Amino acid sequence: MIVVLKPGAKKKEVLKFTVFLEQQGVKVHYSQGASRIVLGLVGDTQGINAEALGAHHLVEKVVRVQEPYKRANRLFHPEDTRIDVPGPDGVIRSIGGVSLGIIAGPCSVENREQILRVAGAVKKAGAGFLRGGAFKPRTSPYSFQGLGCEGLDLLLAAKKETGLPIVTEVMGNHQLEVFEDVDVIQVGTRNMQNFTLLKELGRSRKPILLKRGYACTLTELLMAAEYIMAGGNDRIILCERGIRTFDNFTRNTLDLSAIPALKKQSHLPVIVDPSHATGLAWMVPSMAKAALAAGADGVILEVHNDPENALCDGEQSITPETFTLLMDSLKKYAALEGRSI
Amino acid sequence: MIVVLKPGAKKKEVLKFTVFLEQQGVKVHYSQGASRIVLGLVGDTQGINAEALGAHHLVEKVVRVQEPYKRANRLFHPEDTRIDVPGPDGVIRSIGGVSLGIIAGPCSVENREQILRVAGAVKKAGAGFLRGGAFKPRTSPYSFQGLGCEGLDLLLAAKKETGLPIVTEVMGNHQLEVFEDVDVIQVGTRNMQNFTLLKELGRSRKPILLKRGYACTLTELLMAAEYIMAGGNDRIILCERGIRTFDNFTRNTLDLSAIPALKKQSHLPVIVDPSHATGLAWMVPSMAKAALAAGADGVILEVHNDPENALCDGEQSITPETFTLLMDSLKKYAALEGRSI
Amino acid sequence: MIVVLKPGAKKKEVLKFTVFLEQQGVKVHYSQGASRIVLGLVGDTQGINAEALGAHHLVEKVVRVQEPYKRANRLFHPEDTRIDVPGPDGVIRSIGGVSLGIIAGPCSVENREQILRVAGAVKKAGAGFLRGGAFKPRTSPYSFQGLGCEGLDLLLAAKKETGLPIVTEVMGNHQLEVFEDVDVIQVGTRNMQNFTLLKELGRSRKPILLKRGYACTLTELLMAAEYIMAGGNDRIILCERGIRTFDNFTRNTLDLSAIPALKKQSHLPVIVDPSHATGLAWMVPSMAKAALAAGADGVILEVHNDPENALCDGEQSITPETFTLLMDSLKKYAALEGRSI
Amino acid sequence: MIVVLKPGAKKKEVLKFTVFLEQQGVKVHYSQGASRIVLGLVGDTQGINAEALGAHHLVEKVVRVQEPYKRANRLFHPEDTRIDVPGPDGVIRSIGGVSLGIIAGPCSVENREQILRVAGAVKKAGAGFLRGGAFKPRTSPYSFQGLGCEGLDLLLAAKKETGLPIVTEVMGNHQLEVFEDVDVIQVGTRNMQNFTLLKELGRSRKPILLKRGYACTLTELLMAAEYIMAGGNDRIILCERGIRTFDNFTRNTLDLSAIPALKKQSHLPVIVDPSHATGLAWMVPSMAKAALAAGADGVILEVHNDPENALCDGEQSITPETFTLLMDSLKKYAALEGRSI
Repeated sequence: MIVVLKPGAKKKEVLKFTVFLEQQGVKVHYSQGASRIVLGLVGDTQGINAEALGAHHLVEKVVRVQEPYKRANRLFHPEDTRIDVPGPDGVIRSIGGVSLGIIAGPCSVENREQILRVAGAVKKAGAGFLRGGAFKPRTSPYSFQGLGCEGLDLLLAAKKETGLPIVTEVMGNHQLEVFEDVDVIQVGTRNMQNFTLLKELGRSRKPILLKRGYACTLTELLMAAEYIMAGGNDRIILCERGIRTFDNFTRNTLDLSAIPALKKQSHLPVIVDPSHATGLAWMVPSMAKAALAAGADGVILEVHNDPENALCDGEQSITPETFTLLMDSLKKYAALEGRSI
Repeated sequence: MIVVLKPGAKKKEVLKFTVFLEQQGVKVHYSQGASRIVLGLVGDTQGINAEALGAHHLVEKVVRVQEPYKRANRLFHPEDTRIDVPGPDGVIRSIGGVSLGIIAGPCSVENREQILRVAGAVKKAGAGFLRGGAFKPRTSPYSFQGLGCEGLDLLLAAKKETGLPIVTEVMGNHQLEVFEDVDVIQVGTRNMQNFTLLKELGRSRKPILLKRGYACTLTELLMAAEYIMAGGNDRIILCERGIRTFDNFTRNTLDLSAIPALKKQSHLPVIVDPSHATGLAWMVPSMAKAALAAGADGVILEVHNDPENALCDGEQSITPETFTLLMDSLKKYAALEGRSI
Repeated sequence: MIVVLKPGAKKKEVLKFTVFLEQQGVKVHYSQGASRIVLGLVGDTQGINAEALGAHHLVEKVVRVQEPYKRANRLFHPEDTRIDVPGPDGVIRSIGGVSLGIIAGPCSVENREQILRVAGAVKKAGAGFLRGGAFKPRTSPYSFQGLGCEGLDLLLAAKKETGLPIVTEVMGNHQLEVFEDVDVIQVGTRNMQNFTLLKELGRSRKPILLKRGYACTLTELLMAAEYIMAGGNDRIILCERGIRTFDNFTRNTLDLSAIPALKKQSHLPVIVDPSHATGLAWMVPSMAKAALAAGADGVILEVHNDPENALCDGEQSITPETFTLLMDSLKKYAALEGRSI
Repeated sequence: MIVVLKPGAKKKEVLKFTVFLEQQGVKVHYSQGASRIVLGLVGDTQGINAEALGAHHLVEKVVRVQEPYKRANRLFHPEDTRIDVPGPDGVIRSIGGVSLGIIAGPCSVENREQILRVAGAVKKAGAGFLRGGAFKPRTSPYSFQGLGCEGLDLLLAAKKETGLPIVTEVMGNHQLEVFEDVDVIQVGTRNMQNFTLLKELGRSRKPILLKRGYACTLTELLMAAEYIMAGGNDRIILCERGIRTFDNFTRNTLDLSAIPALKKQSHLPVIVDPSHATGLAWMVPSMAKAALAAGADGVILEVHNDPENALCDGEQSITPETFTLLMDSLKKYAALEGRSI
């Protein structure tokens, strides 16, 4: 940790401050620069309260050298983490390492026919996982809020019929009790910093698909993962799904540079959601291909048999036909990087 | 609702689409422009699923004319809402109308001496409400997470001693059962779109201090208020607390134009949190004055007796001495606009 | 153009306003909605001053239906534009259509040896164009400002030696007189809305590489192109180079969804600059591949023989060795989409 | 300057790197932290090329301790700078210190009657300066581009008639020759980083009103001022005029915390433009008052006698009547802080 002092700090006060710091178990390296004194804090800085330091009257700025996350840090875990998910069909599907995970399905489960039809179609086209929302976070209290437990039951029926493991979103701690047969639990963008929920998920042993908050930095995403990992659950899949910027041609701005950035800093797998990122079905194929080219460990895609009548997110859902063509293309892109779907 | 069709839409298809729309209970006004057809949907558009329309193959763009919120809308409730909060001392303190609310206290309750000392000081200087965190949302799982229920007890002790009503943050539905004696429940910036929590707060009858999500639009803030109001609780205080932008000199960027913007669109009172917005104690006084000049119904300020040793947010906490001077100044600013503290 | 009136607009006033609008040569369609009147302006709305309408006391909001750009609009020019650039070696290199353009070279021309060496290396690896800065826009007046005319001469020497056409940046109208032998003139991100310069470039007949302003919307980029095209020069290559967002792991945030978005709205070719977008050499290869996967018509890359001693942007420059490997990879990605480098 | 090395840097290489740094005239302080080595560079770091350091294979991050601007830096010039502008009426009007500058007038000069009428009205209400655009930067090439030299002549006529000094915008180096009788030269938001123009203005001796680029950091604004100051012209007025964010209720987001931030870092005066920041006339009064409360040294306001028929920016222009009322209010706000208009 580096502490830059304000210009004009008095020697005596600096000495006193140094003693105060050393009492907290660190060694202090002193450098007198042209206009400011710089203190380097060496040793175990975990006990140092950086915020309180920033409030000290001598201090201008505190610069951290070490990342604030440990379990998610590649520095202490150089190999890629791979998340293995056994399906009801006995097949283990993986995300991470050389394995790409393709997760597909409708925004929300609407009825038995719809979910079974989409599930069958994406299975046939080669998807490894079925997604579908039962509990839906909606901006308006007057919008369709999902079928709830009934939706979950329909999703489980589709899991049974297709053999695909299922991915669905949790919106609160109390829902977890009905998630027993869910294979991958999704945390939505608006809950990435719902610390109460993250702590609870740390006690789970299921894989967590953690979506980046739409205005969160990569460090904040890794800290959210760290919350779950600190609780003992290290099976986390990170997901870039677009961030909020000044531009609004697309629903969000897909940040594909997050993929190499996250993979350099962390060992966790990283997938991409081009459906929510763009909000436009016609853009999804090009962005899905770009995601694989950028090194993503998979994609999560909204597929709907009848987007024009979907109860939510129809504008960004591709049809099973488009999905099937896209899968052919994605396999070729994967092969270029020596990866398999 | 206005629906702009794609260039080249065929007459027959447009006719079919019009019939489809009219079956949903609206009248359709047709305009043939230079390159595109524009349809005006008139009547009760509540039943129209705008997202699904956007997914229709003929549609280029859907423009809403009406705001998506009703109960929070000034159009249907022209008078300012005033939130009255009775204190344990029998005094009713108000926020809204001509009354400005000044809420002050430490970021987090640390111990009995600290909270009683700060509470006494802010009461003496003229604050109307005491704030203090018991459950703390922290970016890092390794940071101080608040004293929890013990902190709440200490806050209640300070309430009893000073007679000030208290404001404290809730982080999850399950905590509400211990909030019985809390006067104003705060929803933090990261929970503004925690819809599970908002629905629960709709069932409460306590005033809710709803902080703007740090990357949420004003419409999204009003929709979050609408979630609570739709549940039956219309005692909501909106709070601008800084938004996330490209600039990082300050912790966030305080958006003071949100005050007149919100007050034009909604009847709910709007207060400002310059402490979290700037993250810098030396900026708090000028931003608090600017907030009142911009028309805010109050401010919420972090005050700590010993910022250099605060367990959190010391850098942005002002001392009781600064707070006392600032109160004198704020009273003069309030008087210029005919308002009282 | 659609004009939404404020709630409560009086009939008589609306009538008067309608007459006023029709006098400006448009037909007005009137719709009375639930809370607001909506006017649809049909016919030639070019003469309507939308800003002045927005200032009218009856008006709440003006929504444009037509794009404000014409010459850059794909609606009126459905085929892709291809920019052909003849080199001194007699070969014509193209950007657009099935042809991908690869532009490579150092951030700034530093000396004869450097530019000749890099030029030779990128030529050998298969680049189609040589880039290099002679006039450099630098944030600090104390940083290296480029070699100026001397740099231009060295670039021309490299052009002669390699046969590659050259791309270099102009910073002001007065410099254009020395750009006679430059093949493609680059407009930097900070000059995208330097309207004085854009007008001057409209009088040129050279291809213009127009970089997106780092905080400009896609419509603004197309309007900047329109400025040049309105002057009579329609040989424009658009370039996405990263936008400014709240995140700062990378120098900017590369917005790859801009590629399909621009190509849908405009017929102009679109290339990508992953070097400036990321600011990190190790990220350039993955982002260059992603750009092609997303449908870009080419990339512009900073290549330096000795990044650790570069006079500018060393951190984002790849070596000729990395560039050569990357070219092999890019050719495979291009082939997947039926395009050639 | 602090240089953080990558984890695992080898001792021998670090030694070699240290020698390399010391050859550039600095002393290197070495700290071995838990996972990384940190080097403190002490002495005259002006000669160090921080960008090149960042490209070094051993280096993870370079942190600057000193601000990159000198002449604009309050550290080396603790007193507030006050800009004195003599008018044709012999009165000296000042911006900075205790003096607030109020600049008012139309977005663009439209005709003799308009400019004389507005000029007379704002003079009567107490404005100190007349603003008006002759050369207009417009997003569309098809919009009104200003009257050019004719507009300048009309502005000079208004200056003569009212005795008010005039403020008008320059868009390119070649225009400066006709700016001889202009009192304050404005640099617009889109030209803040037009370095060619900034260098030319450094050779002028007229006061420069430098508007913050709508997506520029405060450091970048101060670096733009430094460009002009490095050329010998230190009469600069900084202007906050709103930044671009995700929110679009207002045209831009007014960043009032920029005022205390800039005034802490620099001795230059800071004014605010609430008209362009909000784009909404009805918001201008509250934001102008907030600007003074936040410590601004003045405001620049768009005033038009007939906003509904203005050739540009009518939506954000207040009438002379509103301006007159606002001036009364601003005087009271100024008095609260011991300042005079």
